[in-house]
Amino acid sequence: MEIQIAVAKTNRYATSESGDTLEVVERPNGGVSVVLADGQTSGHGAKVISTLVVRKVISLLAEGVRDGAAARAASDYLFTERNGKVSACLNILSVDLDTGTLVITRNNPTPVFVAQHEKIECLSGEASPIGTSRNIRPAISELALESGTTVVMYTDGLLNAGDRYGESFDICTLLEGLLEDQDPPCQQLADSLLNQAIRLDQNRPNDDMSVVVVKVLPNEIDQIRRMMVRLPVPPTVPLS
Amino acid sequence: MEIQIAVAKTNRYATSESGDTLEVVERPNGGVSVVLADGQTSGHGAKVISTLVVRKVISLLAEGVRDGAAARAASDYLFTERNGKVSACLNILSVDLDTGTLVITRNNPTPVFVAQHEKIECLSGEASPIGTSRNIRPAISELALESGTTVVMYTDGLLNAGDRYGESFDICTLLEGLLEDQDPPCQQLADSLLNQAIRLDQNRPNDDMSVVVVKVLPNEIDQIRRMMVRLPVPPTVPLS
Repeated sequence: MEIQIAVAKTNRYATSESGDTLEVVERPNGGVSVVLADGQTSGHGAKVISTLVVRKVISLLAEGVRDGAAARAASDYLFTERNGKVSACLNILSVDLDTGTLVITRNNPTPVFVAQHEKIECLSGEASPIGTSRNIRPAISELALESGTTVVMYTDGLLNAGDRYGESFDICTLLEGLLEDQDPPCQQLADSLLNQAIRLDQNRPNDDMSVVVVKVLPNEIDQIRRMMVRLPVPPTVPLS
Repeated sequence: MEIQIAVAKTNRYATSESGDTLEVVERPNGGVSVVLADGQTSGHGAKVISTLVVRKVISLLAEGVRDGAAARAASDYLFTERNGKVSACLNILSVDLDTGTLVITRNNPTPVFVAQHEKIECLSGEASPIGTSRNIRPAISELALESGTTVVMYTDGLLNAGDRYGESFDICTLLEGLLEDQDPPCQQLADSLLNQAIRLDQNRPNDDMSVVVVKVLPNEIDQIRRMMVRLPVPPTVPLS
C-alpha cells in the first residue's frame, strides 16, 4: 500500500504573501500530518496568524500530541495571543501508521471530501474556526486506511471561486467527474481543482487558495519515501 | 525561475525506523529549508536523536533564526540533553528568497555537491557532527540563486554504500555522468543516486539512506507551489 499526498497552492492575485500556511510533518509514531491554516483576511497579517497556528500544531504533533488536542491547544493559544479578536481556519489531515487510520480534524466550515467505494462523502458538519472563544472543539473523522480512498481538503479561496462573477464552484461534481473518468494521479487532481478555481476567478484569484489531495493506493512500488517540492520564484526576489 | 526539491529516503535493511530524519519547513521571510539529521547508530535510538535535532532546527528557522545560529543551538541542545555522549550529523539546505541565495549549512563530514556551469564542486571542508562538545561550528556556504544550479546532499548511508562488499560509491562521477547525459528531473536524479547505493549494498541497505536534490530551473510554468509526498506503508502497519 502507498499513500500519496499532493498539494497545490497559490496567492491571491497581486499579493506577494499567502494567508494560507501549509506544512507537512512526520508523526513520531509513524506516518505524516498535513496541517493547513487560513488566517483571517489576506496578505501579511493573515500570514502571521496562519503561521503562528501551523507552527503550534506541528510542534505539538511532533511531540506525539493527538490531533484533536493539538487543534484545541492552537485555538487557546491564538485566543490568548490575540485576545479573541482574530480567527483562523484549521485543518489537520493525518496518515497515522501507528493506528492504520486517516484522521481528519476540522476547525473550518469549508467541507472535506472523502471518496471511497465509488461514493463521495462530504464532511461538512459544524466546525468553528479557532481563536475567537474558549472551548472551541474540532470536528474529527477517523477512517481506516483502505486502498482506493481519496481525500480532498481545501481553503475557502476554492470554495468561493467565481463568487464575484456570479459563478459558483461545484467541487463535488468536478471531483466525481475526474475520479470516474480517469482517476488521475494525486498531483493532477490537485492541479485540476486549483486551476478550475483560478479560471472561475478569471485568472485573478480573489483569495489565497490551497488544495490537498491524499490517495491510498493498493501497491507500493518500493520501500522508498519520496518528496518533491516545486517553488516558483516570485519576481520580487533579489537575484544577482 | 523555479526551485525544485526532491527527496528519496530508505531505511537500513530489516529495520522499521530510519535514524535519518528529514523535514521541509517554510522560511518566514520567504523560501523553504530542508533539514536533514542522521543520528548516531540506527533504529529507534538514532531516530529519537535525529528527530530531536530536526525539531529544534525547524522550530528556530520558523521563528526567523538564521541557519548557522539554528545549527549551533541544536548542537548545544543535544550536548546538554545527552551530556555530550551522543552525536548527530546535521545538514540544512535553504532556498532563501529574502536574500536570493542558496545556503548550505554542514555539520557533517559527508560532502555536498554543487553543480554549476558544467563544473561540480565538492563541499567537503571540515565540519564536525554536533552534540559532542561545546562550540561546535557549522561550515556554511552561500551561493546566488542561479538557474542551472544543482545541489546534492545525502547521508553517510550513501557514502559508505558497498563498503562491506569491497566496493565504493563514486557519487561525484555518477552525478557528472547523469547531469551531462540527460540532465534528468530532480526526482529522477535523487532516485538514481539512491538506487545505485542500494544496488552496491546488494539490495539490503547497510544503513539508513537519504538523498536530497535541489535544482534551480530558468522558468516557472505558473505561480503555483506544489508538493508531492509518497509514503510506502510498511507491512507492520495494522490495517483493518
